[in-house]
This record gives sequence, C-alpha cells and structure tokens, in this order.
Amino acid sequence: MSDIAPELPGHFNEIDPGLIDSQNALFAYGQVRSATERFSAALSAEDQNLQSMPDTSPVKWHRAHTSWFFETFLLKPFLPGYRGFDDSYTYLFNSYYNGVGAQYPRPSRGLISRPDMAEIGRYRACIDESMAALLQHAESASQRDQIMALVVLGLNHEQQHQELMATDIKHALSYNPACPAIVPEPENDRSGTSLNWIEVAGGLIRIGSDNPAFCFDNERPRHRVFLNNFKLASRPVSCGDFLAFIDDQGYRRPELWLSDGWAWVRQNDIQAPLYWLQEDGEWLLYTLGGKRALDPAETACHLNFYEACAYAQWAGARLPTEAEWEHASTLACADGPNADSGRFHPDVPAAAAAGRLSQMFGGVWEWTQSSYAPYPGFQPAAGAVGEYNGKFMANQMVLRGGSCATPGGHVRPSYRNFFYPPDRWQFTGVRLARDGEQ
Amino acid sequence: MSDIAPELPGHFNEIDPGLIDSQNALFAYGQVRSATERFSAALSAEDQNLQSMPDTSPVKWHRAHTSWFFETFLLKPFLPGYRGFDDSYTYLFNSYYNGVGAQYPRPSRGLISRPDMAEIGRYRACIDESMAALLQHAESASQRDQIMALVVLGLNHEQQHQELMATDIKHALSYNPACPAIVPEPENDRSGTSLNWIEVAGGLIRIGSDNPAFCFDNERPRHRVFLNNFKLASRPVSCGDFLAFIDDQGYRRPELWLSDGWAWVRQNDIQAPLYWLQEDGEWLLYTLGGKRALDPAETACHLNFYEACAYAQWAGARLPTEAEWEHASTLACADGPNADSGRFHPDVPAAAAAGRLSQMFGGVWEWTQSSYAPYPGFQPAAGAVGEYNGKFMANQMVLRGGSCATPGGHVRPSYRNFFYPPDRWQFTGVRLARDGEQ
Amino acid sequence: MSDIAPELPGHFNEIDPGLIDSQNALFAYGQVRSATERFSAALSAEDQNLQSMPDTSPVKWHRAHTSWFFETFLLKPFLPGYRGFDDSYTYLFNSYYNGVGAQYPRPSRGLISRPDMAEIGRYRACIDESMAALLQHAESASQRDQIMALVVLGLNHEQQHQELMATDIKHALSYNPACPAIVPEPENDRSGTSLNWIEVAGGLIRIGSDNPAFCFDNERPRHRVFLNNFKLASRPVSCGDFLAFIDDQGYRRPELWLSDGWAWVRQNDIQAPLYWLQEDGEWLLYTLGGKRALDPAETACHLNFYEACAYAQWAGARLPTEAEWEHASTLACADGPNADSGRFHPDVPAAAAAGRLSQMFGGVWEWTQSSYAPYPGFQPAAGAVGEYNGKFMANQMVLRGGSCATPGGHVRPSYRNFFYPPDRWQFTGVRLARDGEQ
Amino acid sequence: MSDIAPELPGHFNEIDPGLIDSQNALFAYGQVRSATERFSAALSAEDQNLQSMPDTSPVKWHRAHTSWFFETFLLKPFLPGYRGFDDSYTYLFNSYYNGVGAQYPRPSRGLISRPDMAEIGRYRACIDESMAALLQHAESASQRDQIMALVVLGLNHEQQHQELMATDIKHALSYNPACPAIVPEPENDRSGTSLNWIEVAGGLIRIGSDNPAFCFDNERPRHRVFLNNFKLASRPVSCGDFLAFIDDQGYRRPELWLSDGWAWVRQNDIQAPLYWLQEDGEWLLYTLGGKRALDPAETACHLNFYEACAYAQWAGARLPTEAEWEHASTLACADGPNADSGRFHPDVPAAAAAGRLSQMFGGVWEWTQSSYAPYPGFQPAAGAVGEYNGKFMANQMVLRGGSCATPGGHVRPSYRNFFYPPDRWQFTGVRLARDGEQ
Repeated sequence: MSDIAPELPGHFNEIDPGLIDSQNALFAYGQVRSATERFSAALSAEDQNLQSMPDTSPVKWHRAHTSWFFETFLLKPFLPGYRGFDDSYTYLFNSYYNGVGAQYPRPSRGLISRPDMAEIGRYRACIDESMAALLQHAESASQRDQIMALVVLGLNHEQQHQELMATDIKHALSYNPACPAIVPEPENDRSGTSLNWIEVAGGLIRIGSDNPAFCFDNERPRHRVFLNNFKLASRPVSCGDFLAFIDDQGYRRPELWLSDGWAWVRQNDIQAPLYWLQEDGEWLLYTLGGKRALDPAETACHLNFYEACAYAQWAGARLPTEAEWEHASTLACADGPNADSGRFHPDVPAAAAAGRLSQMFGGVWEWTQSSYAPYPGFQPAAGAVGEYNGKFMANQMVLRGGSCATPGGHVRPSYRNFFYPPDRWQFTGVRLARDGEQ
Repeated sequence: MSDIAPELPGHFNEIDPGLIDSQNALFAYGQVRSATERFSAALSAEDQNLQSMPDTSPVKWHRAHTSWFFETFLLKPFLPGYRGFDDSYTYLFNSYYNGVGAQYPRPSRGLISRPDMAEIGRYRACIDESMAALLQHAESASQRDQIMALVVLGLNHEQQHQELMATDIKHALSYNPACPAIVPEPENDRSGTSLNWIEVAGGLIRIGSDNPAFCFDNERPRHRVFLNNFKLASRPVSCGDFLAFIDDQGYRRPELWLSDGWAWVRQNDIQAPLYWLQEDGEWLLYTLGGKRALDPAETACHLNFYEACAYAQWAGARLPTEAEWEHASTLACADGPNADSGRFHPDVPAAAAAGRLSQMFGGVWEWTQSSYAPYPGFQPAAGAVGEYNGKFMANQMVLRGGSCATPGGHVRPSYRNFFYPPDRWQFTGVRLARDGEQ
Repeated sequence: MSDIAPELPGHFNEIDPGLIDSQNALFAYGQVRSATERFSAALSAEDQNLQSMPDTSPVKWHRAHTSWFFETFLLKPFLPGYRGFDDSYTYLFNSYYNGVGAQYPRPSRGLISRPDMAEIGRYRACIDESMAALLQHAESASQRDQIMALVVLGLNHEQQHQELMATDIKHALSYNPACPAIVPEPENDRSGTSLNWIEVAGGLIRIGSDNPAFCFDNERPRHRVFLNNFKLASRPVSCGDFLAFIDDQGYRRPELWLSDGWAWVRQNDIQAPLYWLQEDGEWLLYTLGGKRALDPAETACHLNFYEACAYAQWAGARLPTEAEWEHASTLACADGPNADSGRFHPDVPAAAAAGRLSQMFGGVWEWTQSSYAPYPGFQPAAGAVGEYNGKFMANQMVLRGGSCATPGGHVRPSYRNFFYPPDRWQFTGVRLARDGEQ
Repeated sequence: MSDIAPELPGHFNEIDPGLIDSQNALFAYGQVRSATERFSAALSAEDQNLQSMPDTSPVKWHRAHTSWFFETFLLKPFLPGYRGFDDSYTYLFNSYYNGVGAQYPRPSRGLISRPDMAEIGRYRACIDESMAALLQHAESASQRDQIMALVVLGLNHEQQHQELMATDIKHALSYNPACPAIVPEPENDRSGTSLNWIEVAGGLIRIGSDNPAFCFDNERPRHRVFLNNFKLASRPVSCGDFLAFIDDQGYRRPELWLSDGWAWVRQNDIQAPLYWLQEDGEWLLYTLGGKRALDPAETACHLNFYEACAYAQWAGARLPTEAEWEHASTLACADGPNADSGRFHPDVPAAAAAGRLSQMFGGVWEWTQSSYAPYPGFQPAAGAVGEYNGKFMANQMVLRGGSCATPGGHVRPSYRNFFYPPDRWQFTGVRLARDGEQ
C-alpha cells in the first residue's frame, strides 16, 4: 500500500497494540465508530432494517453487532460496574460466537424491527461512553495490553462490518426498481490503460505477518513458501475486457468453466455479472450512486470465483495463488479507491509505473486460486474471539488487496479475505496471472 | 349479526350502492380510511416494512396497495385531470391484477424500503383528497352508480386488508423474542360455557346473496341447496377443548388426520397451534397484546384446516359445510369480538340463549368442509376487478363468520372467506357439526 | 356404460358380494390377478423396478402390494394356519395403512432391488394358492360375507393398481430418450366428430350409490342434490381443440388461468400437455406404443386440472360438477377404449347418437370442478380398510368416467376418482359444461 | 506401497506406456475388464439399475460408461472400419465430457431401464473384441504410443469406476431394510494397535510425479514445496477412537466443528458416521458383507471432511496437508486391504514397524487439509480427456492412499483423489497430524 501515511493516528492497526496509549486509542476508536454512523446516516429506518438474503445483514444489525462486540469482549469483562445495556442483545446481536451463547437465527435478522434504529443509536452512544471510560481506566490497568489488543481487534472488526454494510445495503437496494442512490455518482473520467505482464521472480520466499502491529490470527505465522517464477497483470480485468468475454459467448461455453461453475451458470441462467443490466442493447450498472452506463475502462467487479476462473481460462491465463499475490505486492503502486473516497465503486485504474502493479490495493478484492486454509503452525486466538477466523477454513477462497468499500488503512499485504466461490455481492474482481520462465 | 345497527352510516356495505349519496360515501370513506391509519400508528417505520413469509405483506404495502386500488379503479378512470401520484406505484403496489399490468414480486415486498413510511402517508393523504373531489363530482356524474359501486368495493377491499395488516404484523412480530405488544392485553374475565348441540332442520334451502346491497361476486347468485338435518355446536372449540386433544396425543395419532395433514404435521414437527408456547410446563400464547398464559375458556384460534379436521375427528364430529353454516346462521346470537374491540383476540364466548349459537360472527373465522368453488351461475365482475375472487377458486377452503380482526360491519351471513388448508396465521378456529336425525 | 355384458362373471363388482359363490369368486380372482401379470410380462426386471417420482411406484411394487393386500386383510385373519410369506413384506409393501403398521418410505420404493422380480412372482403365486384355499374354505365359513366383501374390495383395489402400473411405467419410460414401446401402437383410423352441446334438465336429483353390489365407501350414501339446468359437450376435448388453445397463446395468458395454475405454468415453464413434444415444428406424442405424430381428432389426455380449467375458460365454458356429470351419465353412449383394448390411449371418440354423450366412460378420466369431499352421511369402512378413501379428502379434485387404462367393468356412474390439481401423469382430459336455460 | 510386485504385468500403470507391447496391454486389459464383470456378477438386474442419489450411478451405467470410454477415445478414432455399437450410447453413457457432446442428465441415470443388463453385457463383449483387434493392430501403427497411453488411461479410468461401483451399490443397498450382503462378511480377527506419533523432517522437498510411467495429469508436474517438521499418526483413527468422540458429545459441541460442518450436522441431525446404526444400545455397521457389530479396533470409515476435522480438533491434532502425506509416504508399511481382498472393508490395521506408518495405502482414503488445486505449472491433457481432472478443481478436498475398494496396484504415493467436504459414501477416514519441533 504505497500511499499509507503511518503518522496518521487513525491507522491504529499499523501500530503495535502494546505501544498504543489511551489517547491514541480513543482517537482511533472515535474515528472508526463515527465512520459507521456517517455511512448509516444516509439510510432511513426502513433501509437499515433490510435483509435481502441469509448471507447479508441489516445495517442496523451491523451497527448493533459491532457495539455488542465491544460490550461483550471489553466492557463486561474489563469495566468495573458495567451493566449490560439490554440483556436481550446478548442473543440478538451475537453473530456466530458459540462460546458466548446462542444466536438469533441469521436468516431472520431482517425481522427484528424492535429495537428500532433510534434505539440502536442510543445503544451505540452508551457503548461509546463506556468505552471512553474503559480506555481512560485502561491506562493504568493490569490488563492494559489485553484491553488494547481487544480494542484494536474490535475496531478492525467494525471496519470489516463497514464494508459489509456497503455491500449488504447495495444488494438489498438493488431489489428496488427505482435503483436508489445513497452516495454521489462515482466519477470515471480517466481513460483506460493497457494490460501489461509484470514478471516476478520466485524462489523460497516468506509470506504472512510477523509484525508486532495488529493483524488477524489467520495472517500468522510468517512462513516459507516455494514459488516458481510467474507473471502478474499490471491491472485488474476491466469491464471492457469482460464484455469481450461475454460477446465471445463466455457464459455459454462449458469448456471455459469449472464443473461447479458451469452448474451454477445453468441453474441460475447467468448471463452477466451481478448488477449489470442490459436495456435496449446498452449495458448499464447499478452502483450505490444509482444506475448508469457501463464504462469499459473501469475495473470489473461483482464477479465470483467461477466467473473469475472462466474469464482467466478464456484469456489464456490463470488466477494467482495467494502467496504469489502477497510476494508481488511489493510492486504495488497507484492504489484504487477505498471507502474513504465515498464513491463505493472501483473506478478506472491509474496507469502503473513501468514494472509496477496498479490497483493491487483498493478497487476490487482479487480472487486467488488458494483455498482459505490455516498457515503452517496456525494458532487461533484464545477464547471466544478464537472463533473469528479458523472455523471458516473450508469451502472458501482467499481474496487479496481490499476494495473500494474497504476503509482506508484497513488492509495490508498479508491481509486475507475469504468468500465462497458463488458469492458475488462483494466488490470482487480478477487480476490475471501466468507461469513465468523457469 | 345480531348487534349491527343499520342506521350507522359506517356500515356502508349494508346499503344498496345505488342509494348511497356523496355525503354517506364520504363519511364511510373517511371512517374506513382512518381506521387503517389508526391501526398503523402504533407501528414504527421498521415494523411497517416487515414481511415474514411470502403469504404476508408489510403494513406499509397494505397502506399503499389499498390506496392504489382507489387510484387505479376510480381516480384514473373517473376523476377528470387526475395524474398518478407516482408512476412506479402502478407496478410496486399492484397485488395480482394482471389486467392492470405486471406486479412487483410478492415475496420481495419487504425489500421495498423506499418509498418510506412517511411518503406512503403522503400518498394516502393525496388519494383521500382526490377521492373527496371525485365523490363530490360523482353526485352529478353519469357514471354515478358505477363509481359508488367501486367506492363500496374499494372500502370493503380496504377492510379486508385491515384484517391482513393485523394478522401479518402479528406473524412478523412473533419472530421477535421480545414478544412485542401493540394493543392492550385482551381481557378474558368471563368464565367458559359448556358446548351444546343445536339441531337444525335441513331441506331444500337457499344460500348466497340476492340483496341489492353490496356483496362480493363470490356470494352470488342465491341458489338452492339440499341439506340433511344436522347439528351445530353452540360455541367454537375452546383452548381447553384443544388442550385435551393435545394431551390425548392428538398430534401423534395418524388415524385422526387427513393424509395431507399428517404429512404437514410430520414435516414441520407440529406439536401445538401457532403462537402457543410451552415454558416450564405452562402453556403461553403470543397475542398482539404480548405473551401471556393461555385461558382454557377462550376460543382456540390459529388452527389450520388440518388441525380443525383432526380435532373434529377426535371429538367424534365433523366440520359443517358452508351451506349448513349459512343456513344455521339465523340462530346466531352473542357475537364474539371484532376489530372494533381493539383487542385482536377472540376472548371467551358469551353464553348463548337456548337453541342459539354463540360467536357465529366475530371471534374466529370458522373452517368449513367446503372447498372454495363458484356458486351455480357464478359470474365474475367485469374488468380487472373480476380478478378479485374467481381466480382463487382452487385448493382453498371456505371460512365463515368473521374474526376478532375483522372490522365491525364487514361480514354478513353469506360472506365467504377462503384460505389454504395449511394456513394458520389468520384468526381461524373450529365449530363442530354432526349429522342430525333424518 | 353401454357395452358391459353383465353375464360375464369377471364383472364381479356388479354383483352383490352377498350373492357371490366360491366358484364365481375364484374365477373373478383369477381373471384380475392374471391381468396384472399379463401387463407386467412385457417389462424387464429393470423396467419393473423404476420409480420416476414420489407419486409413482415401481411395477414390481404394485405387484407385491396388491398381493400384500390379500395377505393382510384376508389370509392372515381368515385362513387357518396361514403364515406370512416373508415378515419384512408387512413393512415393505404397506402403502399407507397406519392401522397395519409403519411403511417403507414411498419416495424410495424404487431403491428396493431385493426381493427381485422373480421373487415377487413367487410371492404372487403363493398368495394365489392360499387364496384359492381360502375361497374354498369360505363357502362354509361363518365369516363368508365378510370374506367375499373383502375379496371384491381386494380385486377392485388390484384393478386400480393395474391402472397405476400403466400410468407409472409410462412416466418412467418417458425418461428414456429411446421412447420405448411396450404395447402395440394405438390405431387412430377414425375421423373426428364435431362437439355438440347436450341439454340436461336439473332439479332435485340423487347421486351416489345404493346398489347392494360393490362400490367404494366414498360413493355412499345416495343423497339428494339440487341442480340447475346445464349443458354438456357431446365428447371430450380433442387434441385439435387443445392445439387451438396453444396456438392462441393459451399458456401465456394469465387471465385464462386460476391463480395457482398460472403459478404452476410459470414455475415449470409449461408449454404443452405432458408427453407432447415439438420436433421440427411438428407435434408428437409419447404413448406406451412409442412416439408418433399427434392426431388432432383423438381425445386430449394428460391434462391437469389447471389446464382443464384454463381450456374451459378460453372456450367460454366451465367444468361440470360431479353431480352434473353423474346425473348426465344416463345419456352416455359409445364408450371410449378401456384397458381391455390393450392400446392404452384414448383414441378418437365414436360419434354419439343425437342427444347422447360419447366417451363418458373409457378414453380419459374427466376433471370435474368438485373437490373430493365426503357425501352427506359418509361413513368410512370399519378397520384399517377404512383408510382407503376418507383420509384423502383434501386438496384433490374428483374425476369421473374411467380411462383407456381402466380395466373393463371397473367403473360405474357413481365411481369417484381423485387427483391433485397439478397431477397430469394419469390419462386425464376435459369435457366442457355450460349453464343451461333456467 | 510396500508389497507391490512390479513384475506382475497387471500393474500396467507402473510401466512406461511407451514400453508396453500389445501382449502386455491385452493382458492388462483383460484383467481390468474382467474384474468389473466379476464384481457385477453378484448383482441382479434390479441391483445394477439402482441410483440412490445424484452423486452415484447405477452399476450398469458404470459398466457401460467404461466401455463407452474405450469406444469413444480409442475405437472410433483409431480402429479402421469401426462402427459404433449403438448411436444412442454416445449420449446415454457420456458422463461429463462436453467435448464429446451432450449428456443424459446424471440424476436420472437410474431411470434408464433399457438397454438392460444383458444388453450391456453384449456391449462390453463387443468392445472387448474390438479392443483386442485394435491392440494387435496398434503394434505396428504410427499412433502406437498415443494408443497405448489412452489404453492405460482407460484402464485406470475403469479401475476408478470399479471403486465407485462398490461405494455406489453400498449406498443404494443400504436403503434396503434387509441389509443385503454381496461379499463375504469381512474378518476382523486382529487386535488393535496403539497410535504412535511418527516424526517427519520437513524442508524444501518435492512432490508430484515425474515418472515416465502412467499417472493422471493432476499429479504433474513434480515440484518443490517447503514443509515444516511434522508428526503423523502411525495408523488411521479406529472405530473405538471415534466412539470416544461420540461418547464425549462430539456431535453436539459446535466448538469442535468448522462452521460449515456444524451447519451440516444440524441440518441433517447427524449423530454417527454413515452406515453406523445403534440398536438396543449396541453399535452396528452396515457393510457390503451385511450388518454386524462394530469392532472398536477396525479403522473408522465413511467419515466426511467435516467429521474428520472435528475429530482432529477434539483429539488436539489436525489433518495433514497432501504434501506432508506424500512426503511421509516413504515410511509406509503394512498396507490395509484393497479391493483384491474382496472384503470391501478396511479391517484392523496391522502393527507398523517402529517409526513406520501402517495402512497408509489401502484401508481408507485419508482426508487431507489441502483443497484440490492445480500444481504449479499444471497442464491438462489435450482434447476431451483434458476434462478428466482440471475442471473439478474447486470445492473439493484431496484424499490420499487408496481404500479397501481401490483395485490393487491402482494407487501410488503421488495419487490424488478428491471429494466434496460433505461426501461420506466413499471409504474415507482420518490419519491425524501435528506440528513437529521446528
């Protein structure tokens, strides 16, 4: 991530939690928490309660669950005299932590009209007040390091939910024939750049994090991997690239698809990426800025793993492994937009410097051919927060680099996101790879 | 319906539409429309957007759709210069009238967060204003009779949706572990009455309506039916009666059930009526007044056709036919509560006078053994409103008498309600019948 | 049924069971049982084990189950010293008699490869031998009448399964792209006849059976019904008639369909009756005689209730009630083919005499608009055989008249068949009705 | 594989296809083809037509499809004058080769009663005769090497289907309450051995095949992988081991399960491995030798990936990666039974020599934690046979080592089998791994 300014105190996850002081922590806490509320403010009470499929959650639920996280893992254990805001929230806003107790059924989250939006606003305010008290108290507390580590985890957790809030509400609003806009229409005034192949040398390299600063447990330990030489595309696949695939009957040619992918295409009669619409022969996109014409130069998004693989097959290429991606990420330049842009769309990538990779960070999450699995020597975090990552290590594929909906400063080269192959409501795209000369 | 005061102008459907004047019509219109808003007022924006299954609709949708009905069938054709409130509503709030155009998919109505609750309030106000203009204009119009007939149809239609608003929101709120109350807790201070068998003489009788006052097309024409002598229970089955069925393993004995009913019990692991909960050995009910202990004397409700038949089989009885029910309804006395009570629960029936039938009207809709089918000589209404009834004449069973959620004055002896055998989210119950001495 | 020769002792169900002697019974028994085996003989071991949907059963299962019926209801209770052929058959070949015990799950009947076809042949032979012993023994037994009544019931039961064997194997074989033929190709050398409307006078008539000869419990008691005057079509709807409906976009016009029917059309993308195929613009039929061109003059079959209603709506007519049908059946002449023809296809109806109705019996089962419900005063038979009919009285529609797959002599004017509205693998068709002058 | 005798000409896949002569090839061909028929001979026509779920196929279909493979990829292209046995087979018995044309729908394979078992026998005989001609002709043909390579591929393909025949028919027969036995009851007279941890040194090792002898394309190219030190269990998990997991409430403790695994347990109410039954408190197994008591010493099988992971979690261990497994396989000794034993059950493993691994080959396929993915530099085979492996590289996990149903000589250290995480009808089990001292 070329343009991250480490002196910015908001980038709390680049600092060793052991070195954070209460002022820094409070500042970071306030920044992250208020970003959640800023995004939500454009949404009505009805908007915030929508759930359009079991995989997604209402915005109101995200706002409450991220607060529940601080309440459950910080306030209740560490703030003396803290009493829960509402006992029923333990059940209502637990996502999947069996160690904390039972959970309200996920597919029915959109049926919880009460507590309402205003009440969840009060819940957040109350948690914030108590967290301020805890952080001041924490400075001198014996559990200081443990608290600070959990605060940083909680803030990273909330940032992840900020991204989900954007993708989930986009999915829900897409059911509305009025194509509602909740952000300014993204600008796409840049012209496209050609795709070049960047050669990367392999060898016995290392991936994963050994940084004392925050990272998720799934990024550790740093470990050795042997890579052949390979090539990466200088930019992600664009809408124009993908249109050529469609025009070449890409969705009708089984030889391009994984077997499961072809079954998915046929069962769902898929003919284009999610949120692409064809009206009167013209291709349109639904974005959080409304419905507009597709720009061939902009980065293609909302592709799932099957579409990514089929495109790569058609293009005579393949997806990178996550080790290749991470190893090559030192060549990154010219990040794509992240959530701080407020546009929630990947835009047209800037031209990369010679031998460098554009939009490795920001823009779209990039599918890899690596399944989500534990690194050698992986140890889940202790306690209920240990359910954060490890138990999802089946059936999902790793994505790298962050997207236009990822909060600024949230990702890093070792960051591992993961989704199921058919998922396409995230801002996901493709960067092609090829074998190099050995 | 013993206690209907025909001088009350609100009971518009007891008056021949040809005799209604604009003052009467406006008064009735105002009464019905404001009842919708009074009920909705207790519900938040989030509440009003809930949809818990494809069979139900959000309260907000009901409020909009009933307005759409007046707009589509009255304002657009008959009010000179009227322009639609919003073109997209034609699609969004059409329920099933293919004659009017395409419809937004029913199972996704809960995903329409925009227009929001406030906007639908403005829609209703605008429709009301234009309807007032139309009704004043109608007095002298050549289409006066046609307009008045459609107004009365529209008001009856809105009353039907008032009942659905209550049953649909009850279903949705039941998913909330807090068991929200939106009406005062129903009082049940009456003690129960014993069940007597009332003998009714058969013969070649007539059912159906030939009244010039309003009725739905499915109630016509009045026609001859031959009935054997039969007996009807003096009151509906009570919760205590039904508990005895449960305690006698009624839900585990296939011989009591229709084949399809037994399949339904097993596939859904049914052990009690909808909204009955057992906690610590005690039976509780969820009502719109909250969760409370079951009163054995109150009328059992939320039974479906299968449960009704199994109970009757267990009790050595059967369900009445709709002709038997209608023929016997002259013996009705002591109505159960209707929606005007504001309690939305069937209560304990009052004792009936000797030889009379208690709670035939109000309390619970009573399942009959008659499938919903056209009467001999049935003619659907002309135009798109002809889709109101006839096309539903398959797979459904007739229910009679109105419930605690039916607006006062809405039903009559010839009134035919209809639902599918497995449906149980309506206020539905059982009145037993037996063959008489022939 | 104009052409039934009552002297033929095989028509056992036209004789009062109280008057049957052991010779007659044995003769009838032999005739029915051997008809089952004659039909099966054309089918291989693999054919006989096929089950193509949960509603259907393998031919081998039908052969075993009909034998189980005699074993369970006659041999075990009445033949001294009889020991079951195989204990596991009690469970394997029980269809739905909860009174007899648990049942092997219906959808998995096609997974029972053992006992094999040969073993079921031995089972049948053994049952036949024991039944011969029982019938000779029965002559002097105190339970003679009870035995004879059950024998007649068992033979009628087997005849019903003979029809199901034909429809079930047709459904299964239709999955084979080779379109196997198991009977001679049906001849259709007759030219079509025009459709005339026959007027029938209504009034207070009687339907149902009070004949001492055999009938099913659902046909009793005979009872009074009031009918308006009505008209019936002189013949069922032909393939040519139905083609006109298709050509007039019948499958694309929601206004023609019941609401549930339209949902069925859309969910299954229905464009023609079952077993109709369009190849190179020509309409073909799959019949048990193979694949061949459709003959516009032949009676249309494999229509379900929804298709029947939509066709009637399109034709400006309606379906008859079962009371109308039965009342008019005295006007029947010129039966269509039954299973004795060996062709298993409805053929072209013969011209009816003036004022008479062709193909009322044989050809196709005719959908009525009457749901399958108990007659007034209906009493199920005692014991486990009481599960034969009553428990299916929900969600099904009555069909009348027998089909080309119904054994000769099996049906009668009061005979009530019943299937679910979406079912179309039976030989089912449509005879139109209209209201008469009152 | 310690006990493979390379001089045995039947082990055709250990010989470089370029060195095979027509005599060797014919001998190997005869051996493999006759093994298919020997297994099938115990099955009736009905047995051979069973299909109990979409994942499985009828034995008759396997017999035909393996013949279709030789016909399609060898006889039609290479045998001069060869005419297809039956044109319809091209469609009926194509499994998934889009390059060859359309395929009969997989879930309906059990509905193809015709061609029958005898006809498929004739098909096989005809193919065998033509293949003999081709092999003799091939000796001098210019395409000799290509032919020999395809013959070896076809024989390996048929061996894979031999294993599926066993697992598929076991699944189908398990629906029969009689628990049919088709092989002798497996003997389990050995006593169990304790589980020891064998230390294996890591480093930059190589896996995959560079042997000129036959292997599948997915085993190539041989490539470098870096491994940490690790430990492997000396034998697979036994039934007794797994019983301890069950007794410790393993199926009720979400913390032991992957998230998807826990969902699978709950949705299917899983309480034991497939084919385990509890009767009167005793645990029984269904095997192809019938139903018998579980022996705690025998290797546990029919576990899926989720069960394998949950067990490992409970045992404080993990699954090995496929690279670990392959690297450690040089320590293998004391193979478990393969299909040549005729018992089709994994038995009790023999004790391993010190520092060695028992039952690495044979017994059960062992789940690894590696998803099925292309090796670096993977190239699918050219032409339609290139659809053999690559298109399945999503959502599946790699299994290693072969099972009691794998034909002798079929597997090798680099062999990669793959199934979906929920699959458990294969003979699949668990060998535990742990991190070593680094």
